[in-house]
Amino acid sequence: MKQTYINQLKDRIGHDVTLKGWLYNSRSSGKLVFLQLRDGTGIVQCVVFKGNDESVFEKAKALGQESSLIVHGTVKADERSPIGVEVDVKGIDVLQNVHDYPITPKEHGTEFLMDHRHLWIRSKKQNAILKVRHTVIKAVRDYFDSNGFILADTPIFTPAACEGTTTLFEVDYFGDDKAYLTQSGQLYNEATAAAFGKSYAFGPTFRAEKSKTRRHLTEFWMVEPEVAYATYEDMMDLGEGLILHIVKSVLNERRAELEALERDISKLEAIKSPFPRLHYDDAVKMLQDGFDKGELGASDRGRPARSEEDAGQRPAVRRFEWGGDFGAPDETYLSSQFGSPVFVHHFPTAIKGFYFEVDKDDPKYALGIDLLAPEGYGEIIGGGERAASLDYLEKQLEAHNLPRESFEWYLDLRRYGSVPHSGFGMGIERTVAWMCGIEHVRETIPFPRMLYRLKP
Amino acid sequence: MKQTYINQLKDRIGHDVTLKGWLYNSRSSGKLVFLQLRDGTGIVQCVVFKGNDESVFEKAKALGQESSLIVHGTVKADERSPIGVEVDVKGIDVLQNVHDYPITPKEHGTEFLMDHRHLWIRSKKQNAILKVRHTVIKAVRDYFDSNGFILADTPIFTPAACEGTTTLFEVDYFGDDKAYLTQSGQLYNEATAAAFGKSYAFGPTFRAEKSKTRRHLTEFWMVEPEVAYATYEDMMDLGEGLILHIVKSVLNERRAELEALERDISKLEAIKSPFPRLHYDDAVKMLQDGFDKGELGASDRGRPARSEEDAGQRPAVRRFEWGGDFGAPDETYLSSQFGSPVFVHHFPTAIKGFYFEVDKDDPKYALGIDLLAPEGYGEIIGGGERAASLDYLEKQLEAHNLPRESFEWYLDLRRYGSVPHSGFGMGIERTVAWMCGIEHVRETIPFPRMLYRLKP
Repeated sequence: MKQTYINQLKDRIGHDVTLKGWLYNSRSSGKLVFLQLRDGTGIVQCVVFKGNDESVFEKAKALGQESSLIVHGTVKADERSPIGVEVDVKGIDVLQNVHDYPITPKEHGTEFLMDHRHLWIRSKKQNAILKVRHTVIKAVRDYFDSNGFILADTPIFTPAACEGTTTLFEVDYFGDDKAYLTQSGQLYNEATAAAFGKSYAFGPTFRAEKSKTRRHLTEFWMVEPEVAYATYEDMMDLGEGLILHIVKSVLNERRAELEALERDISKLEAIKSPFPRLHYDDAVKMLQDGFDKGELGASDRGRPARSEEDAGQRPAVRRFEWGGDFGAPDETYLSSQFGSPVFVHHFPTAIKGFYFEVDKDDPKYALGIDLLAPEGYGEIIGGGERAASLDYLEKQLEAHNLPRESFEWYLDLRRYGSVPHSGFGMGIERTVAWMCGIEHVRETIPFPRMLYRLKP
Repeated sequence: MKQTYINQLKDRIGHDVTLKGWLYNSRSSGKLVFLQLRDGTGIVQCVVFKGNDESVFEKAKALGQESSLIVHGTVKADERSPIGVEVDVKGIDVLQNVHDYPITPKEHGTEFLMDHRHLWIRSKKQNAILKVRHTVIKAVRDYFDSNGFILADTPIFTPAACEGTTTLFEVDYFGDDKAYLTQSGQLYNEATAAAFGKSYAFGPTFRAEKSKTRRHLTEFWMVEPEVAYATYEDMMDLGEGLILHIVKSVLNERRAELEALERDISKLEAIKSPFPRLHYDDAVKMLQDGFDKGELGASDRGRPARSEEDAGQRPAVRRFEWGGDFGAPDETYLSSQFGSPVFVHHFPTAIKGFYFEVDKDDPKYALGIDLLAPEGYGEIIGGGERAASLDYLEKQLEAHNLPRESFEWYLDLRRYGSVPHSGFGMGIERTVAWMCGIEHVRETIPFPRMLYRLKP
């Protein structure tokens, strides 16, 4: 008999169906057994009545959590059910009766759950988070595909370090060569933007950072659009449109999952255009005022404790000085001043990468943009306008002590038809964590990789 | 003035527009200069008439290939144009006049072009191939997303070798640990299929193979669906549906690109359901008959020479014996017997991975499936049904000399709710090469990585 999926049941009321799945939970009371069956598309209550067939009843009563089974029954409307239906069971085929499933309804430590990640992803909340991830990624791709961008994935193996090798993973490339795992496809995107006008790359990126905070993974996914003839202001428009499309998609398609996660949905519904756009100088002033009023740090400390490691690494609160880069508490304070994500632009040139375009009127500012997510989720977009001048870039490579030879191909982009162009990167895991309202990015990816986590 | 893209021009006939792009080619004749302007969305002829404004005319005449420029002009219908319009130029802003663009209309060697890949992707054919790639990837994702699959990307860093370490890239993981770059997400997909019912992974995979053929890259992209409660026959249905959707999407959306590539489009239009499904035994008989009739090898040798390396590595033609795995000439011969892709199923268990389910009636056959593309493009799908029994898998690990400890998490999937399940992998680059009708997979990815190619 053909399998019906649980998310199709509300269109099959009154019909006989065959469900194939796993036992999520069960309870029995005298003459009834209630099986919570999951099949990956949802969970439905299957009711076994002793009076119908005693052998089916006994079989149902004996089943342990995560037993695999096929249920035959009739779909009935049920107002009390979150999915509007339940199933009146006529027969059960047990594929495997499980009695020692390691993840029980009791509390488990994070390390134990992470060691059992291959099973943990079956549980309601983890399942919900990864479905939100699916929707975020689909929203990202749909946004760029429907706005004239060409997907041009950049290489994972890169020959040279863009900005020092300390956070790069090194790979032995056939014995006589070394390759490094990409940290960003940006330089390559600049080449594809000149070929396609608008391009984007979407893939895993790697950072060998010895930090153990709730915001870091060694392997994470990033989308990076790049647009020829575009300015840093165009990137704020593009990034804002992207975030609005993601939020809308998640609200439309994953409401049930957000509810399972006990997400405060009103916080996402409040995200509206236009996002505030703060000059770095104004952001600095806001931070200084916040400190002077005794607010800075308070808002950060006020949020729920995120994790022990994080608390340990949180820098002491100090008065922010012009020229510095924002730390997590600064980002949290800035974004807490607004109900929506906030852009910061015009960063000090000295703290930005060698490839940034500078403000022609005041070269101490680089035309960089960051987007800070609300609720303490930090920077989710970083980018800006790239330097178009060959001369300037040659000087920058020297000033940043970078090996000129490795960048010859990149300099070619300025030798042969250089144009103003801009782009940014958006981290998927931080965005998913924000959508879900969860604490740690390690739960936003099926199999997280961290400093001390390479398994399963 | 707001930028109009070239692919929007046919809706702007009679209007003044501003185009931003690069000079693809030009010629002049007395009082006219014809500029072929490209902007990534297309190429349009821009006509500069000396009588309009002599200074604009002189500026246009002086422009070299790949100069960056902004063109102001009026859109005019033109029947001779492949895009139906041309532009009557009123003004030109030259951003950079280029005179020594390295890729000229003359012939260049492959190594030279690959060294200049960052520029080569601007040329008409390379640009067309990568746009077909974009459409293939979008078709793949749309197919799975609209058929109830959840995207669950599997890790790039894996702790253990699945099947020997000889073709694995090794990464130094914070000094005291080794990680390997994934060759396939399959084992992890089996975990996500049990969580989501239907799941797929889509990302880069890596193979440290010292082979230098037209079908191999060290870094390539693969999509891998996995379905709980599905059989190997379901996978043939799923794979056929996937290929049909890809072919349809490419034909609908990339006809201009296929024409630029001089692709024989009728070959793609001929792809129809159902694809033939050959038992391995029947495939063997077909190969033996082909050899006896003197046909085998002929068809392979008859196709256009693909590359020197490939010819060197092509194995000598011999009579195929039961129990062997197909080589490239075998695949080519088999697929040449049909106008469409052809499935082969029921391979000898001895030549398949440890995780294959075997035919219950005759365990010398594994429930594997391969899909062979037409026109000599070889295997583009490989997969099948996975062994569901814990006992059997434990014996297989031993028989294949695999470290039991590394697979404990995988065995958990058989301990806790084991179900029949199946999946496959489809290689993106081979599929794109087939769609485009091109010889070598190295042109199907923006920045190919091969044995001797790690740049740019």
